[in-house]
Amino acid sequence: MLSFRGAILLAGAFSISTTLMAQQHLYEYVDPMIGSEGLGRVFIGPSCPFGMIKPSPDCSSQPNSGWLPAPVPVNGFGQVHVSGTGGGPKYGNILIMPFSGNPDKLDQSSLRENETATLGYYGVTLKKHEIKAEVTAAEKVSLYRFTYQPKEKKSLQIDAGFFLGEQPVPDAREAQQFVGSEIEVVSDNEVRGYSRIRGGWNNGAAYTVYFDAVFDQPLSAYVTWKGKQLYPGKKLQFDSGEKTGALLTFGNNSDSLKVKVGISFISSLKAKENITTEIPHWSFEQVLQQTRQKWEDLLGRIVIDPASTIEQKKLFYTALYHTMLMPVDRTNENPLWISDQPYYDDFYAIWDTYRSSNPLITLISPKREVEIVNALLNIYKHDGYMPDSRSGNYNGRTQGGSNAEVLIADAFVKGLKGIDYTQGLNAMLQDANVPPGGNEEKEGRGGLTDYNRLGYVSYSFARSGNRTLDYAYNDYCIAVVAKGLNKPAIYDRFIKQSGNWQNLWRDDYTDHGAKGFIMPKDASGKWLDSIPYGEAKNQHPTFVYSPLSREFPWYVCHWCAFFYEATSWEYSLSIPHQVPAIIAKSGGADAFRRRLDTLFEKRFYNVANEPSFLTPCLYHWIGHPDLSSQRIRKIISSNYNTTHIGLPGNDDSGAMSSWLAFHMMGLYPNAGQSYYLLNAPLLQSVTLHQENGKDFRIIAKNLSDTNSYVKSVTLNGKKLEQAWIEHADIVQGGELIFEMDAKPSSWGTTILPPAIN
Amino acid sequence: MLSFRGAILLAGAFSISTTLMAQQHLYEYVDPMIGSEGLGRVFIGPSCPFGMIKPSPDCSSQPNSGWLPAPVPVNGFGQVHVSGTGGGPKYGNILIMPFSGNPDKLDQSSLRENETATLGYYGVTLKKHEIKAEVTAAEKVSLYRFTYQPKEKKSLQIDAGFFLGEQPVPDAREAQQFVGSEIEVVSDNEVRGYSRIRGGWNNGAAYTVYFDAVFDQPLSAYVTWKGKQLYPGKKLQFDSGEKTGALLTFGNNSDSLKVKVGISFISSLKAKENITTEIPHWSFEQVLQQTRQKWEDLLGRIVIDPASTIEQKKLFYTALYHTMLMPVDRTNENPLWISDQPYYDDFYAIWDTYRSSNPLITLISPKREVEIVNALLNIYKHDGYMPDSRSGNYNGRTQGGSNAEVLIADAFVKGLKGIDYTQGLNAMLQDANVPPGGNEEKEGRGGLTDYNRLGYVSYSFARSGNRTLDYAYNDYCIAVVAKGLNKPAIYDRFIKQSGNWQNLWRDDYTDHGAKGFIMPKDASGKWLDSIPYGEAKNQHPTFVYSPLSREFPWYVCHWCAFFYEATSWEYSLSIPHQVPAIIAKSGGADAFRRRLDTLFEKRFYNVANEPSFLTPCLYHWIGHPDLSSQRIRKIISSNYNTTHIGLPGNDDSGAMSSWLAFHMMGLYPNAGQSYYLLNAPLLQSVTLHQENGKDFRIIAKNLSDTNSYVKSVTLNGKKLEQAWIEHADIVQGGELIFEMDAKPSSWGTTILPPAIN
Repeated sequence: MLSFRGAILLAGAFSISTTLMAQQHLYEYVDPMIGSEGLGRVFIGPSCPFGMIKPSPDCSSQPNSGWLPAPVPVNGFGQVHVSGTGGGPKYGNILIMPFSGNPDKLDQSSLRENETATLGYYGVTLKKHEIKAEVTAAEKVSLYRFTYQPKEKKSLQIDAGFFLGEQPVPDAREAQQFVGSEIEVVSDNEVRGYSRIRGGWNNGAAYTVYFDAVFDQPLSAYVTWKGKQLYPGKKLQFDSGEKTGALLTFGNNSDSLKVKVGISFISSLKAKENITTEIPHWSFEQVLQQTRQKWEDLLGRIVIDPASTIEQKKLFYTALYHTMLMPVDRTNENPLWISDQPYYDDFYAIWDTYRSSNPLITLISPKREVEIVNALLNIYKHDGYMPDSRSGNYNGRTQGGSNAEVLIADAFVKGLKGIDYTQGLNAMLQDANVPPGGNEEKEGRGGLTDYNRLGYVSYSFARSGNRTLDYAYNDYCIAVVAKGLNKPAIYDRFIKQSGNWQNLWRDDYTDHGAKGFIMPKDASGKWLDSIPYGEAKNQHPTFVYSPLSREFPWYVCHWCAFFYEATSWEYSLSIPHQVPAIIAKSGGADAFRRRLDTLFEKRFYNVANEPSFLTPCLYHWIGHPDLSSQRIRKIISSNYNTTHIGLPGNDDSGAMSSWLAFHMMGLYPNAGQSYYLLNAPLLQSVTLHQENGKDFRIIAKNLSDTNSYVKSVTLNGKKLEQAWIEHADIVQGGELIFEMDAKPSSWGTTILPPAIN
Repeated sequence: MLSFRGAILLAGAFSISTTLMAQQHLYEYVDPMIGSEGLGRVFIGPSCPFGMIKPSPDCSSQPNSGWLPAPVPVNGFGQVHVSGTGGGPKYGNILIMPFSGNPDKLDQSSLRENETATLGYYGVTLKKHEIKAEVTAAEKVSLYRFTYQPKEKKSLQIDAGFFLGEQPVPDAREAQQFVGSEIEVVSDNEVRGYSRIRGGWNNGAAYTVYFDAVFDQPLSAYVTWKGKQLYPGKKLQFDSGEKTGALLTFGNNSDSLKVKVGISFISSLKAKENITTEIPHWSFEQVLQQTRQKWEDLLGRIVIDPASTIEQKKLFYTALYHTMLMPVDRTNENPLWISDQPYYDDFYAIWDTYRSSNPLITLISPKREVEIVNALLNIYKHDGYMPDSRSGNYNGRTQGGSNAEVLIADAFVKGLKGIDYTQGLNAMLQDANVPPGGNEEKEGRGGLTDYNRLGYVSYSFARSGNRTLDYAYNDYCIAVVAKGLNKPAIYDRFIKQSGNWQNLWRDDYTDHGAKGFIMPKDASGKWLDSIPYGEAKNQHPTFVYSPLSREFPWYVCHWCAFFYEATSWEYSLSIPHQVPAIIAKSGGADAFRRRLDTLFEKRFYNVANEPSFLTPCLYHWIGHPDLSSQRIRKIISSNYNTTHIGLPGNDDSGAMSSWLAFHMMGLYPNAGQSYYLLNAPLLQSVTLHQENGKDFRIIAKNLSDTNSYVKSVTLNGKKLEQAWIEHADIVQGGELIFEMDAKPSSWGTTILPPAIN
């Protein structure tokens, strides 16, 4: 896209200062293995920023990212992956695996050692035949370099039938399902084909990953397969709904083999064209350097203090990196329609990313965020609804709200140019007005008929608790844009609806000393103390619903709970536009402080769940940013580190990572609103080299382990009593200076952060 | 499919009697040009029964079938078409056009003469270069034979970018939209590629027609193109969202060129495989004969009296032929999922075909109808809803009811084996219970929330009149299956709902002497005498709605009317399960007779509209089958003939044609119910050679122009007082003898046809 090219050029202007400041390249601080084990599930292979191809070892068909720690064997290298996801796996297509020996069997899996993952690079020794496998990636093309043992036969498997999440049960929920595949040995140095798969986490329709593989030396022999039958010398296997692939042998005297694998969602000739365009040579190093430079340009938009610890640098730049792996730029790769608008896929999910991932992208590259929002609007235009999640060119699933509204409002209040906000308002109104009916897990707002009739979603709909709360905030976002576009009637309706969460607020309910909770209600308006479960006709058992209930999956299905993956203790505090109202309903500032303290101290807070992302900052609204900052410091030190299990939850397309990155800088956005809350930074200094050419610096003077409290703040030399700044303050460039101290101060105690009543 | 092969083998057993009886092959009576001009819009090219490939001359981008009468020039021959449709065109993909001279320009259109269309064959002389073009078709492969002028250069255009219905306005409603195309000269006798298109009448998502073209002689030169740019000698044009194609020249000394064009919805290698499987030779005659034999086997299931006039034979067998052009068997050609169930596409629309097309297929080949119903259930399983229409692998659009219910009930009451009726009931309940929300033009029941809450669809929804009536009949069909499956609670609910049409019956309304009409009502229960139109904020004009109003497209959009394409005079009589209730509400038998007479004599009846298909038979329910028969005779003689304009309306996938075929036999089904009404046949005798091996004969003794009344009827020798028989009577084989006379009799006057109260 032109706009993105523009961004890259602008970035070049910053390279001098970056170079002067950095002891080494920033990309070297990125450790793709952080968060790879445990809950993080991040993608560990090479990728361009928002890159379409994401090659990675696939270690079995089950893990979401493809990769698992040794000693699980490697099946091969799939070309498409997602990062940080939960639920049923998606992708893992077009598996490439080097081996030695005769091309006479399908299982070429191998143990491994010497695994190395750096930004843009993955290398490993495959033990079975002692082959060194290395891969780097351009935008849509992987480049592999395989080094075999001397004099061993150089063989390669290309499996067009592999995919992640295969299950023995047909049509298992969230499981990818095989649809078809094809392979063709086109010439002595080229193989084409595709893999067509449906399902996976978002229950998507069939998507097709086409590929073209070219080799730096001629084939000496080939065997293709269909099902489990091998066909020596047969050039092509057409798609008959069976798995196909090829076993290839190369005959020259070199010990190494290089393979370019281009992919496309359009056709295998387009995949071939992608190779021609992106990698018209065989230099592994050149591809690697180009990809690293693309990252360096983006990472260099936020330069942190050179005196930061290595640990801090790794945490910070890996967090930025994780945030820019997805959504994936598939402009010119959309098989559904052509358009002059950008096309992005793999939104996983906006429910997860709107709070911190997208705001961080907006800070690093507003033009990129504009592209993402325009892609959403283009999807609305052609598919009828914006996605909340989308993968494999198919909307779905919705966990709660129609949170594309937040992205549009966030872009609007932050003044992003190049978006048709009138179309944006129409797209949001589609969500708010037109029930998705039978597609309510796919897009739009499930339970909308209830919501628009009753002012809340009754318990007769799944996830009625978080749906009601999310819709109320989505409605706030509609109101914000409507007001800005001078549509008073729309504004009036939606600003009123933004208070709908109160219709599920049960005032008289107390739990562990806290008063008032979001609780289930039926369509007649009756609060439900007990909730029925099971579907037998002769018995109607119930369970008691409490603010700490996690009723799924024991009493109801995972997606059938009152709150999606959460309790009322967490969600009752997730009202990002009306915090003062929750404070009042909780019994005032002191009661609210006790409520927050209880939440954190009794571990009712769930660090891994996005609806609680803002919660540690809620102390701001009772005049205690010091308490917010202390909570945040503790959450980070207890939950984030640079090990493989360094992320406390599914990274969810950079959600966990971007939350960390913001707090390390001392900023936290309230997406959909124009300000950032200020907290005690974890870094001595941060410089934002903005796309508009203006720098914004954040400095924490006297910061130390003991000096973790903010004494005072100045913005461009003027004292700032409030604990927040506006996005406009950043955009225009300037300097934000925190004076740190060993004890709390009066800063932020009198002027409370924005909210509507 | 195994089941269909079984059917073909069974059919072989009938060939002896067919041969003895027929003076010539039955397929020779099929004239593909009947209904080609005027409103009929039938497909005129060669096709197998339910065949996937349908090559035909495309005479401009606008007509639905591709063909237009001369002197409109021919652009070429597209490979995919539909038959008898209205609205925005669909398909017209992969255009093949022979020409002479250098391959240096894209417009190769030509005038024509000597056009010949017979079953399985189309031939024409293309005037520009005096080239004879002939085509025949196997299931998925077209075979072309082009005869050029001696010593002229043999050239051929393959246009992967052409499609029907292209419009200058981007995203015009119902207009197909270009998505992409690709072309590759694979060798000196093979070209592959595809065309990817979205939209068209059903607003479908993108579909892809892949092709493989092989030639009986080598290329001597080729030029490929992209956009409007020609590239001599360039082998491939990858898909960059532009139109591509190839201009080919052949160099040997022969005057003729044969081209096989295989298509697939899976891949171009599958298209190639389809060629290999279906036409592993170059004999045009062999393909033609095989296709004709497939038709002969099916047409021979119903053998009419050899003494019938040529006109009658042509009318009858062409009607059978039209009925079996669609839906299209795409088993093993589904790009969305794999399954052991059959896959059919191009349902256009079940709203049109359930009344007569599907029942006729059931009579000719119940195994085929079982495949079609199973395809619907498989679509439900994977896409969430059964289609009412479907094309290009995408459900849509719904005109009124969810009429797949009728097909399931019809199969159930007629005892068709091999269908999981429990799954069928679930699929029907999905329609009845789950609103399609934003997809209400795509599938399910638009306005369902109203219907299930109020018992009717209020005027706030488009097409609220026919939606209410159609849903009531669909509900009757659900009740029928629920009862048969012993689900009394479901039966009770839906048999009650089947009376919902009465909620829009306005008792006190009279018009032209008739009392009681289906009229618009708002959600509060208020009848609407006048209906608002327009969307201006400062004016709210209205128009008076009367039972003769055809308010579209003048006051409201075509799809926004109270009744889809009809008036209340027509639709108020379209209650196929409760005719006695309409009679009573109309004031009794005499008033009802006057009402019917008025309808026909004042031309309020619309022969071209399917909701009126049963109406001429309604006299049966007042004991006057004689009047039904007289009306039918008059309708046929005034509206049907063997000319190019021989069909009175869009044939709609054989709807008009099958209505005629039934009435020529003296039978008329009431789909969803198990009986056939009996009328005076137009043919002396008809023998049904059923798939179960049992014959059923219908004989009209003493039939003549003057003896057009039924004097008496016997079934298997027993006198039949009632004017209907059961499907089971036919299935078990036997003989139905009409004794004809010159005046009405008492037959059918006392025992009235079935109905529920």
